[in-house]
Parts: sequence; structure tokens; C-alpha cells
Amino acid sequence: MNLIVMKFGGSSVANTEKLKNAANRIIANKKKAKKIVVVVSAPGDMTDDLIQRSEEITDKPAEREMDMLLATGEQISIALLAMAIKAKGHSAISYTGPQAGIYADDSHTRARITSIKPEKILKSLKENKIVIVAGFQGINTNEDITTLGRGGSDLTAVALAGALKADLCEIYTDVTGVYTTDPRICDSAQKIDYLSYDEILEMAGSGAQVMQARSIEVAKKFDVIIEVKSSFTNEHGTIISREVKKMEEVVVSSVTFDKHQAKLSILDLPDVPGVAARVFGALAKKGINVDMIIQSSARDGFNDISFTLAKADLKKALAIVRKLAKELKAQGVSCDERISKVSIIGIGMKSHPGVASEMFRILSKEGINIQMISTSEIKISCIINEKDAIKAVNALHSGFGLGKK
Amino acid sequence: MNLIVMKFGGSSVANTEKLKNAANRIIANKKKAKKIVVVVSAPGDMTDDLIQRSEEITDKPAEREMDMLLATGEQISIALLAMAIKAKGHSAISYTGPQAGIYADDSHTRARITSIKPEKILKSLKENKIVIVAGFQGINTNEDITTLGRGGSDLTAVALAGALKADLCEIYTDVTGVYTTDPRICDSAQKIDYLSYDEILEMAGSGAQVMQARSIEVAKKFDVIIEVKSSFTNEHGTIISREVKKMEEVVVSSVTFDKHQAKLSILDLPDVPGVAARVFGALAKKGINVDMIIQSSARDGFNDISFTLAKADLKKALAIVRKLAKELKAQGVSCDERISKVSIIGIGMKSHPGVASEMFRILSKEGINIQMISTSEIKISCIINEKDAIKAVNALHSGFGLGKK
Repeated sequence: MNLIVMKFGGSSVANTEKLKNAANRIIANKKKAKKIVVVVSAPGDMTDDLIQRSEEITDKPAEREMDMLLATGEQISIALLAMAIKAKGHSAISYTGPQAGIYADDSHTRARITSIKPEKILKSLKENKIVIVAGFQGINTNEDITTLGRGGSDLTAVALAGALKADLCEIYTDVTGVYTTDPRICDSAQKIDYLSYDEILEMAGSGAQVMQARSIEVAKKFDVIIEVKSSFTNEHGTIISREVKKMEEVVVSSVTFDKHQAKLSILDLPDVPGVAARVFGALAKKGINVDMIIQSSARDGFNDISFTLAKADLKKALAIVRKLAKELKAQGVSCDERISKVSIIGIGMKSHPGVASEMFRILSKEGINIQMISTSEIKISCIINEKDAIKAVNALHSGFGLGKK
Repeated sequence: MNLIVMKFGGSSVANTEKLKNAANRIIANKKKAKKIVVVVSAPGDMTDDLIQRSEEITDKPAEREMDMLLATGEQISIALLAMAIKAKGHSAISYTGPQAGIYADDSHTRARITSIKPEKILKSLKENKIVIVAGFQGINTNEDITTLGRGGSDLTAVALAGALKADLCEIYTDVTGVYTTDPRICDSAQKIDYLSYDEILEMAGSGAQVMQARSIEVAKKFDVIIEVKSSFTNEHGTIISREVKKMEEVVVSSVTFDKHQAKLSILDLPDVPGVAARVFGALAKKGINVDMIIQSSARDGFNDISFTLAKADLKKALAIVRKLAKELKAQGVSCDERISKVSIIGIGMKSHPGVASEMFRILSKEGINIQMISTSEIKISCIINEKDAIKAVNALHSGFGLGKK
């Protein structure tokens, strides 16, 4: 290979021993690829510690200064990692996000990368240096430091891999890859060898603890092949790439669940045009994201509208919806926090009919009641009672044959 | 006043409480001066902690990466301090050394400031913002971060005060000013109200724990008026400025001592031209600084040469000198680590004769033997036995009337 981008998360550089381990992996990779670019996060809990220090000073820290503060974490990691590599006799150089030419917009603490001008990186690669870049940070047109928000280091790695036309972007983490479901609730969860961008996007959107959607979207846009793998073993990880024939043979690739949802219903809403638009318009205006929506006719001239949203938004949403329900002369509002969303995902669904009915059959056989259903081309989600979630995940996981390699 | 530069050392921003105290002082000063620029060091022990982390990785950390690492300390301080000021309702903005336009040379970990391009600072001052600048760091022509070595934040403050033509550069510290001698060994030590650049330069060079010589040299060059004062009281501190008439009235302004010196003697060296040049040339080539030198004729055709140097260099110097003594057919080499240098300093000496003889009289009255003497226009130093140092300092301090205000 010509160029590999390697990304190490905070847990992979949390202390001197782990840092040296990362250095060894980087040096080993230098034999596989001519050029290596490494992206690093802040060590361990440092970001949380810095946030805490700022909270001791004020409960509303200025966002520009927050970025100035938080950017120090990655800077410590790149300096120590470059030292560790050089101490082992290899040539290396560290760059902060701004030095590396990662340009971002003005949205402090949640900036978007606008462009990458990798002149310094290219020059150092030409000099046969291993290039270490601080993840999570960029520079805006004002020459201020901006940070990219949660998952920002993944984004830096994928965007750099795209800009540098890397052959591979390796995401090192403390697990060995992406799993068919959460191993903490299902013993037979298996590592997945190959996933398409669309599948992992659906997984990220349905509760799985995988890479964040915006990194995947950038990877998809620039056709960056990602491998999610462990910093601490030599196993192959999970390859995430554009959809290929072999992926379609797998009907369902993963089962995910999300316990952080709540359901809200407006009962007996008069059936006149524009009612739904008013309800969801009011929620959107307050920044509340709604997931599933079901409208059903309870009796002539009246509808029930139910929808799911993040539990964290429930209180805010209830206030809005109660006020609206009164204005719209609905009969009432009910809500349920004890729900879970269970989903099955797989690009094979596109060419295999009957997957949904199989899912409903499996759940019904377990005596699990389905409250709401939503589907996409490659995903089926059901809202069920929270208490049934683990049982449902295990039944679906084995029912779709994911437990065996 | 139009513009004040305020510098806070690490102990003044070591924790949240101290940081808030610094913020209060800055805000209070904003009423005294239209414009405020603040220079800050890394919090408390952070620099030492980072050095230790690098030492866990390698005993020879790459210097460029060391600067990348150490620069994070000041960056944390400026972000938190700007937050603290903004939280109190005042407008503030932080800049790293590179952002502030502090250009330095390529000597990583001990760079010299080459120029200051304060465009961003001037723009922010115009917007009525309190400007917070990271001390100790700059940027070289390669856009790498460089650090300025020990006392680097003082240097940043003084250089900025010079470049911005500040009315005053306040150096905040944990003592109330510069003292007539070390209060730890002399109860009657007094804070000095006014000192000239030359006096404090001599003090720094003769063992006093005051500002480092290179900051003073920059202040002298650009005529920056410095006030050394406490972060924790409202007392006036010590003003350091160009020599003014009133300073000359004080014959001796301080008594200093240095316990970190050693004496080395070469005995019975044949008195031929070029011998001294060979000895001191060899030492200089190895980077060993020699302080006092005395050459005396022991017997016809032979000389003794004695000189003082830092104790830390003694072992290295002994090896060089022993080899040379053999080559030059000297009779032998002796050394003494149990010496101290005691000095009196004052620009009033220039116009008051007889100060040296008064010093010798005071020491002799105490039964203290003088081993070596050296003088400058405003300083007289004596090498004495280490055991007599405290007695000598106290006798000189009271003998020259420094104990009373």
C-alpha cells in the first residue's frame, strides 16, 4: 500500500505504556505502507478533566475559549507520540490541526471541516517522516482554533484519508471491530467482517455504539475504506466500504437497540389538514428531533398521532405538545418512557423479500408486542416494551442466524 | 495610563481560586488603564508534570516535540483566564504565542524572540477587549512552536510591553517585590522601592532569585518600566527602570550571595605567555562559564591561577584542568567546593568612593577571611568560606544601613 491513515482514540494513548504500544503499531505499519499519517485523540479522560476545570470557573464558558482549552489535549498526545516514535529510531513529526491545514467553520465546539490544505503533511511524507496529526481540531478563517465536537478525531482521520487519497483508514479502538449486536447483552455476538457505509449509518442511527454518522458520510462521499480494529490485538477488524456483491448475500448484518427513546401520543385530534404540520413544526423549531411517526384513525373525523423522540427531549416536548393539544381541541396527551427501539439492518434486505414478516414472527413467538414499526430500504425498526428489549435482541440475533460464524 | 502589560506566573494561576483572583486584579486594572494585555504562564506544576511524562517515554525527547508538548500549559491558562474574565461580564480574548505574533528563532526549548507582529492584539485592544497572551512560546519561520526557556513568560511580557509601548509592565509573583537581601536568611530584609536595570542585572548575576537577565536586558533596551509585585496583596511592589537621580543617593541597594560556586586553582604554573589563554580557552570550548579569575605570583617564574565556576561544572572542569596542568608542567590542581560569593550592589557606588574598603572592614570585623575579590562599577563581590555566608550577609546588610526603611 502507498498510504495508510491510522487513528488512535483516547483510550489507546491514555498512558505511557499504551502510547508506546501505539508507537510500535505505527512502526510495524510503516513496513506495510510507504506513507503513514496518524491521527490522535486527547489522552484518556483529559477532555473531561478540562471541561470540569472550565465548569469550576463558569457554567457558561465562552465557546471560543473552550476550543482553545480543549485543543491542548490532542496537542499533548501528538507531541508524546512523536517523541515515542523518534525514540525508537524512526523519523516522525507532529502537527496540530491548524498546522496540518484542517480548515473548519466558525461553529466553535461543533465545527465542520470546510477544506484541507495538507501542504505540510505532504512535505513531511516526502521526507519519509511519519506524520502525527491532532484530531478533533481545525482553524477557522479568523485563525482561531475550532473543535469538531464528539467523534471529531474520527472525522479528522476520515477527512484526511479522503484528501490524501489514502488506501485505508484504520480506526484503532478498544474493541476488535463492529459486532452483530452488543456483546454485553448477547453472548453470541460476532465481529462483522464487512459492512457497507449505508449499513453502519443505519446502525449509528439506531442506537449502536459505532462511528458517528458524519464521519461515515465523509467516508462515503470520498470512498474512504475504513477498518475498525483493536489497538491491543492483531486480529482483523471490520472493513467498512462501498457496497459490494458479497455484502448482499447477508440478509441481516446486525441487530441494534436503543433504550434512550420515549413515545408521545396526541389522542383524538380533529382530522383537519395542517394539524400534523403544526405539531411537528413546533417541535422542530425548538430543535427536537422526532424519530418514528404513526397516525391512526381512532374514530371518524379524529386521529391519534404517536411519535418517538429522545428521552432527554421528552419534558420540553411535552410542554409544547400539551399546549398545542389544547389549542387544537384534542382529547389528551399520553407518554411512555418505558419503550425500546429494536432494529435489524442489512443491505441484503433490498433483494430478499419477507424479512419484515420474519422479524414480526420471531418477536411474536417470544410473546413480544410491537407498538410501532418503521422501515427503510435496509432497516426495520420496532418499538417494544423496554422490559422485552434484551429478549428481543437475542431472539432476532439467533433467528437471523447471526450467532454463528 | 494608556496600556499596562500584566504578567502572572504559574503560582498565580495554579487553581480555580487563584485564577479568579487574577481575573479580579485584571478587571480592577482596567479602570486604571484604557488597555490591558495579560501574559500568563502554565498553571502551577504543569510544566514539570509534562516534562516528567516525556521522560517516561524517552530520556532524550526530540526538542521540537518538547516545545509542542510544553506549549499546552500556557494555552490552558489563557483559555481559563479568558473564560474567568468573560464570566465576570468583561470582554476578553486569548491568543497563543504564535497567534499573538511572537516570532522566535529555531533554537527549540531556548528560543530568542526575533520580532513581534502584534496585529491581532492591536485589533482586539481597539475592540476594547482584555487581551490574554500565552507566555513562554513563539513561532519560528517554519510555523513550528518554539519555547523561550526558563523565565520565558517574563520575557514575553517585557517584549510585548516594549513592542506595544506600554506605560508599565507588572510582573505578578508570590512575593511583594525585590528585597535588599534574601528574607529567609536575614530578618531585617526590606522591600526595595526603586532599582535600576543595571542593579537588578547585577543581582541576577550574583545569586539573587529575581527576574532573569535576558528579560531585564530587553526591558533596558526598550525602556520598559517594570513593577514586580504580589498577586495576593495590594502593596506597591518594586519599580525597575532606567537610572534616575534619586537611585544614586542609595550607595548599596542590596546584598546577594551565591552558594552554588566552587573554586579551582592551578598551582605553580610556569609563567610563559599564552598559558591563561590555553586554560580558559579549553574550558570555554566545553561550555563552562568561569566567574572570577585571580592570577598571583607564588615564586619567580611561576604563577598560581585560581578561578570560580558553578559547582555543577566542577567535575567536568577538573578533568580538563588536570590534563592541562600536566601538559603545562604545573605542580598541581586544588579545588574547594565550600565557598560562597557575597556581593553588594548599588549604582550609588559610582559616585561614592570607599565602599569597597568599608565592605572589607565589615567582613574583617566579623573575623571573615576574604579569599578572592572582584568588582564592577556598581558591584563588589568577595569569595569567602561557605560557613561564614549568612553571617557575612547579615553584617553587610546592617553595616550598609539596609535594615531600616
